[in-house]
Amino acid sequence: MDNFKKYFVECIGTFFLVFTVGMVTLLPGNGVIPAIAIGIMLMVLVYAGGFVSGGHYNPAVSIAAALRGSLESELLIPYIISQIFGAVIASLLMMYLCDIPAVVTCSYSLSNIMIGEILFTFALCYVVLASATTPKTKGNSYYGLAIGSTVTVGAFAAGGVICYGAFNPAVAIGLFSMHISCMGLTLATIFANLIGAVLAAYAYSYIKDES
Amino acid sequence: MDNFKKYFVECIGTFFLVFTVGMVTLLPGNGVIPAIAIGIMLMVLVYAGGFVSGGHYNPAVSIAAALRGSLESELLIPYIISQIFGAVIASLLMMYLCDIPAVVTCSYSLSNIMIGEILFTFALCYVVLASATTPKTKGNSYYGLAIGSTVTVGAFAAGGVICYGAFNPAVAIGLFSMHISCMGLTLATIFANLIGAVLAAYAYSYIKDES
Amino acid sequence: MDNFKKYFVECIGTFFLVFTVGMVTLLPGNGVIPAIAIGIMLMVLVYAGGFVSGGHYNPAVSIAAALRGSLESELLIPYIISQIFGAVIASLLMMYLCDIPAVVTCSYSLSNIMIGEILFTFALCYVVLASATTPKTKGNSYYGLAIGSTVTVGAFAAGGVICYGAFNPAVAIGLFSMHISCMGLTLATIFANLIGAVLAAYAYSYIKDES
Amino acid sequence: MDNFKKYFVECIGTFFLVFTVGMVTLLPGNGVIPAIAIGIMLMVLVYAGGFVSGGHYNPAVSIAAALRGSLESELLIPYIISQIFGAVIASLLMMYLCDIPAVVTCSYSLSNIMIGEILFTFALCYVVLASATTPKTKGNSYYGLAIGSTVTVGAFAAGGVICYGAFNPAVAIGLFSMHISCMGLTLATIFANLIGAVLAAYAYSYIKDES
Repeated sequence: MDNFKKYFVECIGTFFLVFTVGMVTLLPGNGVIPAIAIGIMLMVLVYAGGFVSGGHYNPAVSIAAALRGSLESELLIPYIISQIFGAVIASLLMMYLCDIPAVVTCSYSLSNIMIGEILFTFALCYVVLASATTPKTKGNSYYGLAIGSTVTVGAFAAGGVICYGAFNPAVAIGLFSMHISCMGLTLATIFANLIGAVLAAYAYSYIKDES
Repeated sequence: MDNFKKYFVECIGTFFLVFTVGMVTLLPGNGVIPAIAIGIMLMVLVYAGGFVSGGHYNPAVSIAAALRGSLESELLIPYIISQIFGAVIASLLMMYLCDIPAVVTCSYSLSNIMIGEILFTFALCYVVLASATTPKTKGNSYYGLAIGSTVTVGAFAAGGVICYGAFNPAVAIGLFSMHISCMGLTLATIFANLIGAVLAAYAYSYIKDES
Repeated sequence: MDNFKKYFVECIGTFFLVFTVGMVTLLPGNGVIPAIAIGIMLMVLVYAGGFVSGGHYNPAVSIAAALRGSLESELLIPYIISQIFGAVIASLLMMYLCDIPAVVTCSYSLSNIMIGEILFTFALCYVVLASATTPKTKGNSYYGLAIGSTVTVGAFAAGGVICYGAFNPAVAIGLFSMHISCMGLTLATIFANLIGAVLAAYAYSYIKDES
Repeated sequence: MDNFKKYFVECIGTFFLVFTVGMVTLLPGNGVIPAIAIGIMLMVLVYAGGFVSGGHYNPAVSIAAALRGSLESELLIPYIISQIFGAVIASLLMMYLCDIPAVVTCSYSLSNIMIGEILFTFALCYVVLASATTPKTKGNSYYGLAIGSTVTVGAFAAGGVICYGAFNPAVAIGLFSMHISCMGLTLATIFANLIGAVLAAYAYSYIKDES
């Protein structure tokens, strides 16, 4: 059945995304590397897999796409399962490869986590809908660059300052599974991601002009 | 009415732009991050909102677009109001989230501020008109990359060296509203931005070839 | 005969790629530069030579392309010879220009080298096939950006952490020829690159939708 | 007359390019900034002015374009004069704005300067011809990215290591005019740039496939 191709693409894409997040977050003195590397990885995966599955690699994006009507709703649950499965496999491989330091930073305030994650998950889902699902801009070559770059700028502007900077429940679960995040932070992040996704779907449905 | 969609896009776009400017400017030891993050944010917003409002997020760009004829002149004032509104909301959120240090740097000479802001606001408006409004290059996928990158290079080449590097009156007002700029610098920056925008509109009208 | 043009492009492209790898790896305190410079060089070369030879500059990519059917199989051996020839010339020029320090780092464990090189050579070949040979996305302008960026992110995420980060047998041979890699590392890297290429060809043939 | 528009675009483009080169080279502790900022500036200028003049901003590129037949030969001298004029104006403005330190670094060996400048001027002109003048890739959106990025990677791989990294006689003259280069280095650089341009025109005429 054709849909398995889509789940396969979402699963290996989320695997590579979370593996990259884990590896670059663990680098000592990493500076600008995580924000840039994670955004580039997402850009590449969107360009590589977009023509098969849409290239979400993110349950929040899949939810926004389903609300907007560009993902069939019966595919939503299998997409999310595929994404989380890829994320967990990546975290297991990470733990095999590297000694992960037991330094769990859960020092952000709950309101700051919520604001940072809602704002940039909103931006991410809004950019996905605007650049990859708008008929008027169909066939453009910039959608992957725009989508990946949104994560980079979110990581620079909010990640590590007011929140962890996941903007993606699968990434949040992967970090928790690698033991470099704690339960409270993970749940708050996932909840904020879902709010951002729903707000973005509504904002996009207001501005889109398909008549 | 359809125009409200445009004001909405300009308002949330300028909000995200100014919020990003504020967050990355406040990072300690930020190095290359502000110039890169701000340019990327503008690029993403141009790609995401261009098909609705043109994706200006900058009163200087809106003025240049109105002079060139790609923005209807009765939309100019609502565009500018939407942009400034978004900028002020971003600065209020910034002040809620972060302790902004009371270090106001107003140490540039007036002539240097004017030269730096005029040069790169000219470059920014010229790039917007050339890459996003020229019939010959219609449908290109690079306009957002070119526009955002102009701000990055202006921030590297002039920002922090001879001027603050706003190239955007809404950003100048947002920084003033966050108390990280002073009145004199803000007014000089806005005045220089308007001069750059008008010069760019004239330069573009000379080189454009629409006959 | 027309095919010599292709070998010429593959040869000078691999020359520039390996020359860049050598120069930026030798820079003292190079930080983010190697990963970014090597990825940019590959991107530029793919855009410059893609219309002639496909722009592989990498025996692993040529093997994946031959398995997928986008490279005629009788060109595979001449492509690989041209690539290795360019790589060796680059290493000889490097040794003429620079005093190469005799510090050979062969400290990665064999299993880590294999995992890191297989993963990102897989990603690289998969991205090449998906972005440059898929009929559905023909004529896109992002293929060079996607391909070059995959090497950048592989170098950030795995290079120097769990493996050397070649993802390319010609690069591995060039580094060995410059005496900045050792025999065991080189052979393991090349073997891993071939495994990654074959896996990518199979994964792509599963997801591609050409019916 | 229409051609004056082209000279105007080449002149202000080279002005911005050389102004940016000067400003970012003078930054203390600039690290990765010059290579990235200069490449981005060139990319932006190519996208902004390409539809008018071809967006050369570089006598070596204009010579290669004339040899390849994409620039009418009677425009070559006015193009070069416009480019040098823009470069000198930029250097005069730089000297007005900044105290330029009297540290002239002319410590590279003549053979290294020649090799570095020939290699990457060759690469730059080859990329310009392949990405911006090849009928088969007409209408692509990547040409500016490819061209600007070639300068970035040349600056990383050779600039400051074996040569100054101009790859452009107008930039070499601008740096000399700012007193941050010496006569011998400037002349060697210009001579090497011309050799690289001629070699690139021949290489491109071999690989191009216009029959």
